[in-house]
Amino acid sequence: MADINKSIQLVNYPTGMPVPENFKLVEAAIPELKDGEVLFKTKYFSLDPYMRGRMILTKSYIASFELNTPLQGGAICMVEQSKNPKFKVGDLVSTFTGWQTHAVCSKELADTFNVLPPIEKPSLFLGSLGMPGLTAYKGLLTIGQPKSGETVVVSAATGAVGSIVGQLAKSKGCRVVGVAGGPDKCKFAVDELGFDACVDHKKDTLNEDLAKACPNGIDVYFENVGGKVFWAVFPLLNEFARIPVCGVISWYNLIDTSDGQDHTPDLLISMVKKRLKFHGFIVGDFMGETKEFLDVMVPLVLSGKIKAKEDIVKGIENAPQAFIGLLQGKNFGKLIIEI
Amino acid sequence: MADINKSIQLVNYPTGMPVPENFKLVEAAIPELKDGEVLFKTKYFSLDPYMRGRMILTKSYIASFELNTPLQGGAICMVEQSKNPKFKVGDLVSTFTGWQTHAVCSKELADTFNVLPPIEKPSLFLGSLGMPGLTAYKGLLTIGQPKSGETVVVSAATGAVGSIVGQLAKSKGCRVVGVAGGPDKCKFAVDELGFDACVDHKKDTLNEDLAKACPNGIDVYFENVGGKVFWAVFPLLNEFARIPVCGVISWYNLIDTSDGQDHTPDLLISMVKKRLKFHGFIVGDFMGETKEFLDVMVPLVLSGKIKAKEDIVKGIENAPQAFIGLLQGKNFGKLIIEI
Repeated sequence: MADINKSIQLVNYPTGMPVPENFKLVEAAIPELKDGEVLFKTKYFSLDPYMRGRMILTKSYIASFELNTPLQGGAICMVEQSKNPKFKVGDLVSTFTGWQTHAVCSKELADTFNVLPPIEKPSLFLGSLGMPGLTAYKGLLTIGQPKSGETVVVSAATGAVGSIVGQLAKSKGCRVVGVAGGPDKCKFAVDELGFDACVDHKKDTLNEDLAKACPNGIDVYFENVGGKVFWAVFPLLNEFARIPVCGVISWYNLIDTSDGQDHTPDLLISMVKKRLKFHGFIVGDFMGETKEFLDVMVPLVLSGKIKAKEDIVKGIENAPQAFIGLLQGKNFGKLIIEI
Repeated sequence: MADINKSIQLVNYPTGMPVPENFKLVEAAIPELKDGEVLFKTKYFSLDPYMRGRMILTKSYIASFELNTPLQGGAICMVEQSKNPKFKVGDLVSTFTGWQTHAVCSKELADTFNVLPPIEKPSLFLGSLGMPGLTAYKGLLTIGQPKSGETVVVSAATGAVGSIVGQLAKSKGCRVVGVAGGPDKCKFAVDELGFDACVDHKKDTLNEDLAKACPNGIDVYFENVGGKVFWAVFPLLNEFARIPVCGVISWYNLIDTSDGQDHTPDLLISMVKKRLKFHGFIVGDFMGETKEFLDVMVPLVLSGKIKAKEDIVKGIENAPQAFIGLLQGKNFGKLIIEI
């Protein structure tokens, strides 16, 4: 049994796109358990775009990551030792212990984690049945409120959130148009996820391609990326369009180059003219609705009616590079590290 | 009895701030009435900031003003001749006949207008009991949804819409902070309208003054103006703040100078971090709720519980200059032309 915990820690805050030198792999002895504590052994941990937003030192909706401490995040763990009556050895648990192979948690912290039902692929609880799934579910249905016959556009269409958004919108009778990077992802969105169309944002013809794919304009834009995709969507928004703003990954990394003009006036003028509703949200605000979400989604996902593609990378040491790839759109499906 | 109609017409579309040369005064003979037609004699007509948005040639929520035809807008008229059973001579009618002394209307058009109850100051139906009042009422209550104890900021605070927004928000138990131009307007907002504070946007200390006036941040920002006031409000917005976007008058005229940076990314990133809701609207979407609005507002306004300041300019020939002054913030209260 390992008595060493390996973890990935941030050693400094990235400027723009993170680089491997922002991270280090640290080994540390696992301490003896005290009363109430639990030792979790990580099976999978999650890499998510929102984590980039925690790798900065400014006030945000969630605290900045601390330097020189294991990076936090969702994980699926097995209980290896327990001095806490809620957990017994061998239990599968959804935790927030993040980028490490093991974690000793206090009673107070451990008690916030949930023991999972045994399913064949527990990694799904990091994706379609976890935080990204809940993000898609509430962002689309509660904020976007798509109606049958409307056109829904989702960026990062084959990602953990986008793929669920599109499939849920199809189930509501919408025309669903994805935006993704590269022909393979676009083909997957149409052939496997059942989108009506998917436009490649790497092509120079993005604006025209999107307009062609949305002959009746756009009623709901589920925003994951910002940048040039946002500006391609913007002129196509219909009156009374809803824009659930989930994230703007390209802007987190300051990838986009400005044209030297402030477009805020255009945005607010259009809000009035078209009566647009922009509504930012984070999944944390909807945690109280997890049960309703799982009641709906577990049967859909386990029956294959909603497909969930995973991109599983083995080995904790590969997490930093995989995370950087995620921000660059190199993953294909929900990115997960398997220990 | 006049058999000449005087009207103000647009002769070309302004670039930036309108100038007197964009307008002309036209005299024309009033034709004989045909069956079903009504001849209205204007007592008052309304000048409103949204009219600037119609003085352009691009697609908008409402058609552009046509050149060389009387400018449209809300008016309070008396029936001078009628071949329409709905109207009898002497009736006071709320019309949309605009910037002219008389108007002959077809049966179809006239039938869309409403005969008004006799009140002492019928001009109120152009302001607190008219379109600006309905704009304030629905924008604040339906979109802004202020709760007791929250801080509501309204720009153009002594204007036709802003003054009603602030007084309604006070009636809901909110801390109300206005933003207005100059010490007289600010004093009026506090002393007469009962706002908790009012900040002068003409001062260099706008940002600090607004922050001081909003020690608990801003929960609802009723946006009328855009520009530097918007950017003073923006960093003070609380989590879950609501921003009813009614207009951005300073941006309609391209008054603001850009700092060469695109602030759209800042805006969308903050939407996510703070879960902001921006919701553009126009009063036309709420016309079906006029009765509910009048049921609530007529007693409040006629009893003086909600005060309505009017800025009445006499003479149709003064309308263009008064309208330009409105866009420059020179009016004080609801701007109305009296014939």
